[in-house]
Amino acid sequence: MADLLVRGGLLVTMNPGRQVIEKGSVAIEGNRIVAVGEVRERAERVIDARGKAVLPGLINCHTHLPMVLLRGFADDMPLDKWLSDRIWPMEKKMGPRDCYAGALLGALELIKSGTTCFADNYFHMDQVARAVAKAGLRGVLSYGMIDRDDEQKMREEIRIGQSFVRSFHGKAGGRILTMFGPHAPYTCSTECLLKVKELAAKFGVGIHIHVSESSAEVKQTIRRYGKRPVEYLDSIGFLGPEVLAAHCVWVTKREVGIIQRRGVKPVHNPTSNLKMGSGIAPVVEMLQAGVPVALGTDGAASNNSLDLFKEMKLASLLAKLRNRDPTALPAMKALEMATRNGAAALGLEDELGSIEVGKKADLILVDLKKPHLSPLHDVVSHLIYSATGSDVDTVIVDGKILLEGGEVLTLDEEKVLELAQRTSDDLVSRLGEEK
Amino acid sequence: MADLLVRGGLLVTMNPGRQVIEKGSVAIEGNRIVAVGEVRERAERVIDARGKAVLPGLINCHTHLPMVLLRGFADDMPLDKWLSDRIWPMEKKMGPRDCYAGALLGALELIKSGTTCFADNYFHMDQVARAVAKAGLRGVLSYGMIDRDDEQKMREEIRIGQSFVRSFHGKAGGRILTMFGPHAPYTCSTECLLKVKELAAKFGVGIHIHVSESSAEVKQTIRRYGKRPVEYLDSIGFLGPEVLAAHCVWVTKREVGIIQRRGVKPVHNPTSNLKMGSGIAPVVEMLQAGVPVALGTDGAASNNSLDLFKEMKLASLLAKLRNRDPTALPAMKALEMATRNGAAALGLEDELGSIEVGKKADLILVDLKKPHLSPLHDVVSHLIYSATGSDVDTVIVDGKILLEGGEVLTLDEEKVLELAQRTSDDLVSRLGEEK
Repeated sequence: MADLLVRGGLLVTMNPGRQVIEKGSVAIEGNRIVAVGEVRERAERVIDARGKAVLPGLINCHTHLPMVLLRGFADDMPLDKWLSDRIWPMEKKMGPRDCYAGALLGALELIKSGTTCFADNYFHMDQVARAVAKAGLRGVLSYGMIDRDDEQKMREEIRIGQSFVRSFHGKAGGRILTMFGPHAPYTCSTECLLKVKELAAKFGVGIHIHVSESSAEVKQTIRRYGKRPVEYLDSIGFLGPEVLAAHCVWVTKREVGIIQRRGVKPVHNPTSNLKMGSGIAPVVEMLQAGVPVALGTDGAASNNSLDLFKEMKLASLLAKLRNRDPTALPAMKALEMATRNGAAALGLEDELGSIEVGKKADLILVDLKKPHLSPLHDVVSHLIYSATGSDVDTVIVDGKILLEGGEVLTLDEEKVLELAQRTSDDLVSRLGEEK
Repeated sequence: MADLLVRGGLLVTMNPGRQVIEKGSVAIEGNRIVAVGEVRERAERVIDARGKAVLPGLINCHTHLPMVLLRGFADDMPLDKWLSDRIWPMEKKMGPRDCYAGALLGALELIKSGTTCFADNYFHMDQVARAVAKAGLRGVLSYGMIDRDDEQKMREEIRIGQSFVRSFHGKAGGRILTMFGPHAPYTCSTECLLKVKELAAKFGVGIHIHVSESSAEVKQTIRRYGKRPVEYLDSIGFLGPEVLAAHCVWVTKREVGIIQRRGVKPVHNPTSNLKMGSGIAPVVEMLQAGVPVALGTDGAASNNSLDLFKEMKLASLLAKLRNRDPTALPAMKALEMATRNGAAALGLEDELGSIEVGKKADLILVDLKKPHLSPLHDVVSHLIYSATGSDVDTVIVDGKILLEGGEVLTLDEEKVLELAQRTSDDLVSRLGEEK
C-alpha cells in the first residue's frame, strides 16, 4: 500500500522519452515515487488529478529569497542607482528577523506558483533555511560572499560561508542542501574564489556565483584581468561541473565552449536580464553545445515575481527573438530548462527533474479547467505559453502535500503576508529616519 | 442614491494627474461614473474594495477572438508554415457556430483577466457580436477583409464589411461598435483600401488593419509599390486618426513621423511579435513622438493568451531591452498603454480609459492580498511587474457587474469550456478527415 496516490491526471513525465500519459497515476511511498502510469496499488491517501496536468515540481536555480520584501520598491532605474540608492541601503538595514519574514513570504510565493526546489544566494541564510524547513520546500542555499580585495573581509566571509555549509548541509530531512556563494568575479578576489573552490571540493558541495550579467561587468573584468569573465575564471582553474553560473548573458562563442568543456551550469534569468537592461543570454547556442541551461527568476526586486511559468514563456519568446526564428526553444525545451536541466544544474539529476520511479516525490498539479487553458490541444504548449503560477492547484515535495486546492498547508498565509508588510514598512521607515 | 458603489479601494484613477487615491470610492449611476474619491452617497448595491486595487478596465486593441479555439494547436513554427499548414486550413473549416463557441470562450477569458473592451478583426463577426452582447463586454468589431487583387472578391468583402457595420454599430446598448477591417496592405488591393477609407468616413467608423508586422511584409511592399508599408498607405491617402494599425514593428523614424502627423493609432502586440519571430516595435520612439501607442494580445494562436497584464509587463521589458535602458517605459507608461491610450486608439478617449466623473463605468478590481503582490510599496509597479489576469477579482462594464469574486456572472463557465472543447475537437477531426 502506497502512502499517496495521485490518480488519473495528464502526466507530463519529463522522463527520457518525454512521455505524456493520459489518465496516469503516480504512487508515492515515503519521499519517493514508486510507480508511474497505470497504477493498481491502493494508497492511504488519494489525490484526484482528473482535469489536471501532473508534472515535476519546477526548479528555480537562481534567486535571493528575502528580496521579495523589496518587490516594487525600486523599478525603472539604472542598475548603479538601483543598487546604491535603493537596494544596498535597504539590505544594510535587513537583520535576521527581516530576512526570515522575507524568506517566509518568498517560500509562500514559490509553493503557490509550483516551484518545489530553488537555489538561493543571500545573507542571514540560517533564516532562509529556517523558512525552507518550515515551508516544506527543497532549497540549495548559499551565503553570498563579497570581499572586494579586502583580505580581512575575505576571511570573515569565508568563515560565515563555511560555517553555513557545515551547519545546514543535509538538514530538514535532506531538503536543505548548501553551496558556497561567492557573489561574482568582480566583487570577489582571485584568492577568495580559489579558497572557495578548495572548500567546495572538501565539503562536496557546489558553488553559486553570478557571471557575465552585464556588459559593464565584462568591460571591468577585461580592464582588470585582460580577460572576459568566463575566460578569467577558467584561467584560474575555478570552473567545473559544481559551478552554478547565474546569468551568462555576455558570453562569446569561445566562452560557451569553455562552459561546455568544464561542465559549468549556466542559469538563464530572462525577466531580470530585461528589467535591468542587461540583454539576452545565448541560450539556444548553449543548449546546442549540449549545456543543460537552467532557469531562474533572480530576486523579486529585479523581476518582480518568482513565478517560473512566466520565465519559461519568456525564455522561449526571447530565444525566438534573438535567433529571429519562431522555431527556437520550443515549449518542451523550455519545460526541460525548469525541470530536468534545473535538477542537473544542482547535481540532483538522479533525484529530481522528472516523474520516474525511484526519484524524489516532488510533483505539481496544474488545473487545466480554465478559460485561458482551453481548449486542450497540447498540454506542454499550455504549460509554457498560457499558464501562470496561479494555475497551480497542488504541490507535493518530498512526498508531503504543501499546497492543496490552491491552499498552502504548511504556512499561515494571512500571517505571513501581515508579517511581510509590517517588516517592509518598518525597513522603509528605518531607512527614512537615517536620511 | 447611486446604483452601485465601489467602496474603500486603492484607486488607480489614470486621470490626467494619474492620481492614486487610498481608500477611495467610485459611485455609478446607470452606465456612468458619477463620483470618485471620498463619496458620501449611498447606493443600491455596494462592493467592498478594501485590499483591492480599482483601475479602469483594460482595453485590448488587437485580437481575433474566435482564434482561442486554436490555442496551442500550432506553436514553434515559421510564420508561412504556421499559416498555410495549420491556421488557414482550420479557419476554412470554421463556420458561424464554431466562431460563436470560440468567441464565448474568448469573452470568458477577457472578462476573467480584466479586459473590458477589445478591438476584434475576424470573420463571422455577427457571431462575435452575439457573444459580446451575451457576455456584457464592450467590443469594437470589424470584419477582416482580404481581396488579393481579385475585384469580385473585393466587392464581396466590402459588401460583408459594410453590412456588418450597418447592422451592428451601436448595438447591445452601445457596447458594440464597429470598424472596417481590411486585413493588411499586402492582402488588400489599393482599390479596396480606398473604398474602405471612403466608407469609413461615410459611416463615421474606424479602420482596423495590420501594418508592418514582419520584415518580409516590408520587403514585399517595397518590391510591389517601391515604398515601405506606412509610406505606401500615406501615399494613397489612406492614413488618418481613424486608422487602428496593429503591429507597426518595422517602421522607420520617417514612418513614425508619418504616423504622428496623420494621427494613426498603432497597437503594440509584444508577445505575438516575439512568438512569430517578428521583432520589437519602436514603442518608446512612437510615445516620445506623442503617439498614444495602444496594446493588444493578437489572437490566442500566436500568443497564446489574452491576458493584457502579461502584455503590459512584456511591453515594458522589451522597451528596456530595445533601448538598452532600464528606465524605458516605466510601469505607469505601460498601464497608460492598456487604458488611456487604448481608449484614444478607439476614438473613445472621452468615454473610457480612466476613472473620472462622466466616463463610462468600466472598472476592474485586483485582489492585492496575494503573496506575489506583497508587500505593497507601489501599486502601479505591482500591477505591471507582478500581477497577472488571474488576480482580477471583479469586473464592471457599462455599470454592470460581469465578474465578482472571480466568478463570471453573465456566462456559464463550465458550459462555455465544454462547448469550446467539443467544437475544437470537431474542427480537428474534420481537418483530419480531409487529409
